[in-house]
Amino acid sequence: MSSANKGCVVVKSSLIDPDGGSLVDLVVKKSERDLKARDAESMPKVSLTRIDLEWVHVLSEGWASPLRGFMREDEYLQSLHFNCLRMKDGSLVNMSLPIVLAIDDEAKERIGASNDVALAGPDGDLVGILRSIEIYKHNKEERIARTWGTTAPGLPYVEEVITPAGNWLIGGDLEVLKHIKYNDGLDNYRLSPQQLRKEFDKRQADAVFAFQLRNPVHNGHALLMNDTRRRLLEMGYKNPILLLHPLGGFTKVDDVPLDVRMEQHSKVLEDGVLDPETTIVAIFPSPMHYAGPTEVQWHAKARINAGANFYIVGRDPAGMGHPTEKRDLYDPDHGKKVLSMAPGLEKLNILPFRVAAYDIVGKKMAFFDPSRAKDFLFISGTKMRTYARTGEDPPDGFMCPGGWEVLVKYYESLQTEEATQNAAVLSS
Amino acid sequence: MSSANKGCVVVKSSLIDPDGGSLVDLVVKKSERDLKARDAESMPKVSLTRIDLEWVHVLSEGWASPLRGFMREDEYLQSLHFNCLRMKDGSLVNMSLPIVLAIDDEAKERIGASNDVALAGPDGDLVGILRSIEIYKHNKEERIARTWGTTAPGLPYVEEVITPAGNWLIGGDLEVLKHIKYNDGLDNYRLSPQQLRKEFDKRQADAVFAFQLRNPVHNGHALLMNDTRRRLLEMGYKNPILLLHPLGGFTKVDDVPLDVRMEQHSKVLEDGVLDPETTIVAIFPSPMHYAGPTEVQWHAKARINAGANFYIVGRDPAGMGHPTEKRDLYDPDHGKKVLSMAPGLEKLNILPFRVAAYDIVGKKMAFFDPSRAKDFLFISGTKMRTYARTGEDPPDGFMCPGGWEVLVKYYESLQTEEATQNAAVLSS
Repeated sequence: MSSANKGCVVVKSSLIDPDGGSLVDLVVKKSERDLKARDAESMPKVSLTRIDLEWVHVLSEGWASPLRGFMREDEYLQSLHFNCLRMKDGSLVNMSLPIVLAIDDEAKERIGASNDVALAGPDGDLVGILRSIEIYKHNKEERIARTWGTTAPGLPYVEEVITPAGNWLIGGDLEVLKHIKYNDGLDNYRLSPQQLRKEFDKRQADAVFAFQLRNPVHNGHALLMNDTRRRLLEMGYKNPILLLHPLGGFTKVDDVPLDVRMEQHSKVLEDGVLDPETTIVAIFPSPMHYAGPTEVQWHAKARINAGANFYIVGRDPAGMGHPTEKRDLYDPDHGKKVLSMAPGLEKLNILPFRVAAYDIVGKKMAFFDPSRAKDFLFISGTKMRTYARTGEDPPDGFMCPGGWEVLVKYYESLQTEEATQNAAVLSS
Repeated sequence: MSSANKGCVVVKSSLIDPDGGSLVDLVVKKSERDLKARDAESMPKVSLTRIDLEWVHVLSEGWASPLRGFMREDEYLQSLHFNCLRMKDGSLVNMSLPIVLAIDDEAKERIGASNDVALAGPDGDLVGILRSIEIYKHNKEERIARTWGTTAPGLPYVEEVITPAGNWLIGGDLEVLKHIKYNDGLDNYRLSPQQLRKEFDKRQADAVFAFQLRNPVHNGHALLMNDTRRRLLEMGYKNPILLLHPLGGFTKVDDVPLDVRMEQHSKVLEDGVLDPETTIVAIFPSPMHYAGPTEVQWHAKARINAGANFYIVGRDPAGMGHPTEKRDLYDPDHGKKVLSMAPGLEKLNILPFRVAAYDIVGKKMAFFDPSRAKDFLFISGTKMRTYARTGEDPPDGFMCPGGWEVLVKYYESLQTEEATQNAAVLSS
């Protein structure tokens, strides 16, 4: 693959009406909460895992609008085969990931012919109700093959969520008793699509560009975001606002945890690499699938629901290494190609970007210049983590010092933890 | 699964303009043939397998219209991810199977920077030209997973075509020198979409209902087809014509071969089970994928291109047993569900059917009546083949005697062949 093909793109949308009229909100009114809770007492109970609850969070706030709950079979099949849903008026809405709730044989039997079920959180609390349910087969192999384009063992979401799940899926209309909170000190960053839209209005944004990430922000990312802003200003927008939107749900074990990333992102703003005046940092509550071209559609679609109208796509979005072969799981260019062609996202426009890399002459992250290719160093996420883990400094200008320090401290704490555990094992 | 869900459906379309104006025809004019052939002499050659040639046949006659040749990457990705292609005017056209041509590393190197390649048939003859080519990676695992929803070993098309194929795909605009012929005595049944449309016009059909099959016709199939005709007459159509349309390309080894099936179909018409006055028998040149809900879309779409406006869908269309597990590969109901929701096939209407089975009281194939379920016998394709192979007669009224005789003779000939081979092995 030529380096020229490695670039990023910004995707523009005018899909969602600016007043947010169509956004689904599945959290019941406070006045109805007690009544619903009493209602739920007589219903069969379905227990949610931590990740099921993340999906309840996603659904309840309208990120997956127009979905009104976990998918019934017709929605599931459309998502799996077409990556989109047909609405009653004939229009197509993008919906690339199956958002489903699995139950086992025992739960299915317990539910019997009930129309509605109560949903209990991982700690047993009543979370909500699923109404007018439909139970259908959970063909895990087909779901995995069609979502990831592989069934190789070792896909993080598959191992964590799908393999241990039951053989049935239960869909229905969701009612959530109250907004999902995590009490981890980060809830104030968890803005709903409705809240984000209000914030954009308050700041009088005339363009909102979203940046999805699950990694620390380095200066290459910052270059992309700042350059997008520059280009938007050139295009005539007066007040473009950046939505820096780290993913807050399930991630694989070797990714940097959310709390560390949030601290790192704060430093990036403190150090002035991104302008706090024109940036909103918020958490996207979705779990991560690592499903490349299929998942990037979900990442874009959810941000459009939150009011973003430009979406930045990098190389190999939502990708990872193949779990059993020595190669990328997805062609690094397929993400942006598939996104640009996805049904239900027709109104997206794409601004091509060259890829950013470390310029060893300029001593900074810069857009790759093929005429002096030998001056550029590509530093992958894996390479970055290796630097931080071994205590080796990355090249000057790769990341702001404050942000880098957060990462180094995190990896030091991991090593201390590991050493303590090893010592405990030795002494036991 | 309840028996009520096992039924067949007829799908109606008014998608294609009746004059066939939009149909692609990629066979060059006779007057240009010599010029094109001289042109091709200077081009790098790509060798086609027997099944590649079947796809050239399919493409050349417009079954896959609006495709103008083997898919380039943007068409391939849309087919793989969305089962449909977006046209320049924004409309979506269904295209559920990747129609692609694979080449190996050596061929790719030989082609180098050439814009066009010559296509040579399995016996070395020049077949056509692929113009303005694009070569891209053939990620077999991803293609298989997204097309079949499994990567289990033993999928017939995968083993025959994909596993031995090269690591590159080559797309481009196809020019075919002359109509593809097989010289097997059946070419007169191989009517192109254009020819079929003319035939429907000639017969003054006001409705055309297509029946896809790759198996002998038993009286359950006939019941379906005759009942469809009855219902179409009831709906007010004056002259509904049946397109009995056996698949003529690659099938798996234990399927009944095309020549035997064609003989069997002739007997069914001779015996009056189907009315020759209102039936056209023709061969559909496509190879078989056995890809269930993904493939049934292709089967319907190609027949719509040929002028059919009703399409009959049975239980588990294009399905087969899971290659490594003791179950159907696909949920038997998913085919008709997915077809009814497929983008690019929006104008299809569905008439639900009850499933046909052998009524041991009435001694005939009849629509299943759940109120006397114990009176019905389900005879699968496998069961039918076992009857014919072992020389056991199926229940009276299962198939017309003339048709059954064809099958019995075929299986007898197989056993003779096998015995001869065994004898040859023993004496060698």
